[in-house]
Amino acid sequence: MGTSYNKNVERWDVFEVSCEGRKDGNPFTDHDITGNFKGQNENVTVDGFYDGDGVYKVRFMPSFEGEYEFTISGSFKQDQGEEVSGRFTVTPASEDNHGPVRVANTYHFAYEDGTPYYSVGTTCYVWDLQSDERIDQTLESLTEAGFNKIRFCVFPKHYDYNLGEPRSYPYEGTPMDSSVLTKDNFLQYTGAASGNDWDFTRFNTEHFRHIEKCILALRDRGIEADLIVMHPYDRWGFSCMTEKQDDLYWKYVLARFSAYRNIWWSLANEYDLFLHKTIKDWERYASIICEKDAYSHLRSIHNCRPFYDHTRPWITHCSIQRQDLYKSAELVNEWRQRYKKPVVLDEIAYEGNIQHGWGNISPEEMVRRFWEAVCRGGYPGHGETYMSGDDVLWWSHGGRLKGESWKRFKFLHKIMCETPGIGLAPYEKCGWDEVCAVPEETAQMTPVRDYYLFYYSFMRPSFREFYFDDNTEVDVEVIDTWNMTIEDRGTHKGRFKIELPGREYMAVRIRKHR
Amino acid sequence: MGTSYNKNVERWDVFEVSCEGRKDGNPFTDHDITGNFKGQNENVTVDGFYDGDGVYKVRFMPSFEGEYEFTISGSFKQDQGEEVSGRFTVTPASEDNHGPVRVANTYHFAYEDGTPYYSVGTTCYVWDLQSDERIDQTLESLTEAGFNKIRFCVFPKHYDYNLGEPRSYPYEGTPMDSSVLTKDNFLQYTGAASGNDWDFTRFNTEHFRHIEKCILALRDRGIEADLIVMHPYDRWGFSCMTEKQDDLYWKYVLARFSAYRNIWWSLANEYDLFLHKTIKDWERYASIICEKDAYSHLRSIHNCRPFYDHTRPWITHCSIQRQDLYKSAELVNEWRQRYKKPVVLDEIAYEGNIQHGWGNISPEEMVRRFWEAVCRGGYPGHGETYMSGDDVLWWSHGGRLKGESWKRFKFLHKIMCETPGIGLAPYEKCGWDEVCAVPEETAQMTPVRDYYLFYYSFMRPSFREFYFDDNTEVDVEVIDTWNMTIEDRGTHKGRFKIELPGREYMAVRIRKHR
Repeated sequence: MGTSYNKNVERWDVFEVSCEGRKDGNPFTDHDITGNFKGQNENVTVDGFYDGDGVYKVRFMPSFEGEYEFTISGSFKQDQGEEVSGRFTVTPASEDNHGPVRVANTYHFAYEDGTPYYSVGTTCYVWDLQSDERIDQTLESLTEAGFNKIRFCVFPKHYDYNLGEPRSYPYEGTPMDSSVLTKDNFLQYTGAASGNDWDFTRFNTEHFRHIEKCILALRDRGIEADLIVMHPYDRWGFSCMTEKQDDLYWKYVLARFSAYRNIWWSLANEYDLFLHKTIKDWERYASIICEKDAYSHLRSIHNCRPFYDHTRPWITHCSIQRQDLYKSAELVNEWRQRYKKPVVLDEIAYEGNIQHGWGNISPEEMVRRFWEAVCRGGYPGHGETYMSGDDVLWWSHGGRLKGESWKRFKFLHKIMCETPGIGLAPYEKCGWDEVCAVPEETAQMTPVRDYYLFYYSFMRPSFREFYFDDNTEVDVEVIDTWNMTIEDRGTHKGRFKIELPGREYMAVRIRKHR
Repeated sequence: MGTSYNKNVERWDVFEVSCEGRKDGNPFTDHDITGNFKGQNENVTVDGFYDGDGVYKVRFMPSFEGEYEFTISGSFKQDQGEEVSGRFTVTPASEDNHGPVRVANTYHFAYEDGTPYYSVGTTCYVWDLQSDERIDQTLESLTEAGFNKIRFCVFPKHYDYNLGEPRSYPYEGTPMDSSVLTKDNFLQYTGAASGNDWDFTRFNTEHFRHIEKCILALRDRGIEADLIVMHPYDRWGFSCMTEKQDDLYWKYVLARFSAYRNIWWSLANEYDLFLHKTIKDWERYASIICEKDAYSHLRSIHNCRPFYDHTRPWITHCSIQRQDLYKSAELVNEWRQRYKKPVVLDEIAYEGNIQHGWGNISPEEMVRRFWEAVCRGGYPGHGETYMSGDDVLWWSHGGRLKGESWKRFKFLHKIMCETPGIGLAPYEKCGWDEVCAVPEETAQMTPVRDYYLFYYSFMRPSFREFYFDDNTEVDVEVIDTWNMTIEDRGTHKGRFKIELPGREYMAVRIRKHR
């Protein structure tokens, strides 16, 4: 019988068992496959999935090192009876493998091995459904910019600036004729437009295999895959399937992708724009995830206008699109207080120059929002919507970054990584005209002294005065967040004054002298 | 007996009767003088005041043309008995005299002759108490910038960057020794610091005569004098006088200044920073104004943090210091709805580079706040706090303007003046990502068509699409609010697209084709 698997796999990598099985009927719905994986510290049962051509697969992400045994069962087998089973060894994680990202310290994230994870994300909705060449470009761009999270979709996207056909579709069948679409009429073709002909019970396995390739390519670059499982920008009907079709889809997605350590579940982009879904639907999808994802990957749901109720226990972190035209990252303090969860600004507006207000802020404003978010204990996300001759907009297609803000995030990330402990918190006892970040652990102390990061945003002070106490010696650095310079300004104590250049976007980092 | 007055005065000018009178006792408190002024359309009785050296004066601002008669009475006369009386003629107002400014169209202002008044103000707290040379500089600067309102104080100001002595004091007596003051200790000397020796019952008439000179100089330049009668930045005790002393002061101020047509009463700057005043006090001052100002000049009261209750009937317009670091002019819509009065942003932050967040915004941000305010149907106010070698900061001293924003307000004012009707209103039916002003009279109509002013603030659209109806022809202009250009973009109807440069601070004006 055709069964294959590796004898060794590293911790938090994917252990996959591939089995030949029945092709009769509709294997996606008529047959099932399940795996049980048992080591000294865990005993996990997960669903597998049909991958086409008579091949069924079960994937498992081991969370511990050591010897494991597994048993595969289910109705997929051609000859009833004997079980498929075996053994494998989980070796230590390699250097860049820190495990899946978890919530840590209430408002923050860390990899499962304890390494803090400071999220600096971007959004390219369907970079994964572009040509191989553009996909490679996107991966290079992500690495160059230092992004460590990207939001993207399983389903293709139908929206302004992105009316073409994707490289593949998630189901067997044929799409509507897209030659009827123009920039002016595309909104007439949303949801279940006529002319589509899909079999929602038969997945196009090639589509899913390709997405897995993208998830792995991200993983190998240390980038989290914040997978948008559902979205409303649709002309094919994927956003308005039946309850049964949705559930089949969710289970298939969970069976295929859960074992990738860098997966985050974004239930929806702009959940409130779905015309045919109710809160009950979203809660049902959430239950399916909680039941079927054996690894408890991060879970969130993203809004257009009203927030989803981020207090729901299955939501691990707030995935926020700003609701106000003027205030975005400035509200992170409030959201932290309200939800007591990490706040990820998964749409803080896009740097660019398209006609829409959400897609035309300046690079300076984008970088300002990033710093505001970080200094308030939140995690900002980037995006780019520059009009260009090639009609390739990062926000939708990926490709090459054309803006200016992305060049400044590695610098910010380095400063985030230099936080003592896990994560920054807004210091409420600071002046009204500054933003001040301190380590989460010390946010309730007065004074903090060990570490302060003051940010002056759009203000342009020529100097600032500081006083913590009479005796503690502190080291002072002046940071130009736009020009990415850090100037040492020596050791001070008592009351002292720091000269600043009277420009926007300056910060001052003050740390206890060692 | 020494009485003098003019036989002719123009409408809304000051008719003054000057009488010699008793010098015994304390003329400021022991004697009184009152005038009755009667024309065909009005019969007005007002208090006069003692102006030193045995001279008493009564001032009257006639609101109508024609023949008037007057009678002066009171205990000021050396020989009891015969009344001082006379006649005068009120001639038509000269070309640039439009009368006092009144509230018009609920949210706006107009001069009494009906000419709309579009306020574009600035603040120089004690420009009036500087040297003659600097006062002249300030007046020139005001004219060059085109400001038509200025906020300033009667009392001298004690605050950072302004610790020197004023040119004169409002009372007879001697101030504390200011040589003890430094930039670091000045806050220890606030309110009734020891070392001051004032007779709060004897005004220094020279101080008040000088302020009158300043009010007149402003009037002659078409600038409204938004007089801050009380303020808390004080080392002399003027902010913590007794109830009786306060009332004497208010009555003196009202008797002296009410007849100037360009006077506005600002009861306080940052009323909530007074340590010794209660709401009862502010309401008492308001009653005195309402009783003693025969001309009902505009009345407001300015906050630091909490607003005064601007619904109080004596308050003619909201004098607002922004309460939020990030949102200022953006809240004008809300304030208009809440108070149903004109909204004047009398502190929108200062362009500059001092250490404080209220005094270091960029010129671009200042101009942006101006346009936001105007397009939301409010009236913005400017200020400047640039550090400089001469320690002359416009905000406090006046002098020469050093910034960049002031150069852009004449241009804005011209556009305000081109509004049909009286005043702009925010159009609530516009897109979420634009600010749109329409004439107040049409703000509830759909569509408006006659006039729209769209403002894109910090956003950078490369184009915008418009549609009002199928048939109305409209003229379109693209306005660069920073570079002060207006480009004609032709006549359009139906659905049309306007190309924009993808830069910040752009506006589009659309008017019905004529």
